[in-house]
Amino acid sequence: MAKVTAEITMSLDGFVAGPNRTLEDPLGAGGEELHEWAFRLKTFQEMHGGEGGATDSDDELMAAAVSAVGAIVMGRRMFSGGEGPWADDPNATGWWGDDPPFHKPVFVLTHHEREPLVLSDTTFTFVTDGIESAVEQARSAAGDKNVGVQGGAQAIQQALDAGLLDELQLHVAPLLLGDGVRLFNEDAGRTKRLEQVSVRESPAGVVHLSFRISAPDQAGASRA
Amino acid sequence: MAKVTAEITMSLDGFVAGPNRTLEDPLGAGGEELHEWAFRLKTFQEMHGGEGGATDSDDELMAAAVSAVGAIVMGRRMFSGGEGPWADDPNATGWWGDDPPFHKPVFVLTHHEREPLVLSDTTFTFVTDGIESAVEQARSAAGDKNVGVQGGAQAIQQALDAGLLDELQLHVAPLLLGDGVRLFNEDAGRTKRLEQVSVRESPAGVVHLSFRISAPDQAGASRA
Repeated sequence: MAKVTAEITMSLDGFVAGPNRTLEDPLGAGGEELHEWAFRLKTFQEMHGGEGGATDSDDELMAAAVSAVGAIVMGRRMFSGGEGPWADDPNATGWWGDDPPFHKPVFVLTHHEREPLVLSDTTFTFVTDGIESAVEQARSAAGDKNVGVQGGAQAIQQALDAGLLDELQLHVAPLLLGDGVRLFNEDAGRTKRLEQVSVRESPAGVVHLSFRISAPDQAGASRA
Repeated sequence: MAKVTAEITMSLDGFVAGPNRTLEDPLGAGGEELHEWAFRLKTFQEMHGGEGGATDSDDELMAAAVSAVGAIVMGRRMFSGGEGPWADDPNATGWWGDDPPFHKPVFVLTHHEREPLVLSDTTFTFVTDGIESAVEQARSAAGDKNVGVQGGAQAIQQALDAGLLDELQLHVAPLLLGDGVRLFNEDAGRTKRLEQVSVRESPAGVVHLSFRISAPDQAGASRA
């Protein structure tokens, strides 16, 4: 069966976006630097309508990850570029322009009902009844491929907390942002243990880690 | 010249100790699990007066790290096992028993002056004038070997913030502790960029990352 995966770039101190986010700078201070390893790649450039770019092992990894995903789940803020004027505008076309880089069905978690939005070859479907429903709808749309929960942090946290994620792929960048949006919830509940399944070095100085996530009833509760 | 290095095990969500720390459980809930990769090793067992233990690539890595360090800097809480009754007792012998596992000079950051304490082949020297002084004294004691800032989080943060660290060696364990003691300060200052110099897989499911740290005047300020 197709898997539900999450993939995101995190700083060494745990942030997926920096402080002082604005509509012009939705990743906040230092946030763009997190993604430098990806921006330079041929696959990234192609997705964004550009040309050229590196074709090294990072590009192979990114191309494989993109190809494995048949439908995407994202949070409302990722759709709208933060808490800007588009966030609650039912006619807004989002942050990504007329030709979004997704090129596949996208399911947006939101509290505001609206009709699906078709922009070029990306269809955004707005889901108001929660992460389980979004993942289920994405699963139908993805066919044999995986569902990719691609951010932001809150959407990934919700999927993790709901036991919906099978795999987590983290790109850890050697940056200390010091403040911003954390990937992982602060939660004084039981310890959660993941299974590290691969470690890959990058020519761009990040490290690619992938983890398998057990079903909640099998996950390791703290032995302490 | 000998280097100043810091080495510590961190959970994937950034904690070096869990919540609810006590004198009996100074690493807090989930904190012992962080160190399972190390507890099982021959080098660890030998340092703690034990026998046996695994001799895999993790053990080689630990043996090399221990051998490279000629003197240790640690915080008062690491000496005393947290905020227990020993923390402010000038006659306390610390948390580590009559035969501490360090076997080399240790410089303890504290606000309380006291004479050096000799326990078996470990001498604890108490330093009341700050991290620079502790590192300088450790450097003299270390000879040609490195100074190891071995925790806790606060001592490593102080060394990092003061620009005293040349290298950081992180063992990242696939655990989400959710709460506890964070390794890195929350600090909305400029973005700090480290240079990832090695990535090593572990048979115990952690990943060993090592970073070179530029002098503060060369470190990358945020370009954002």
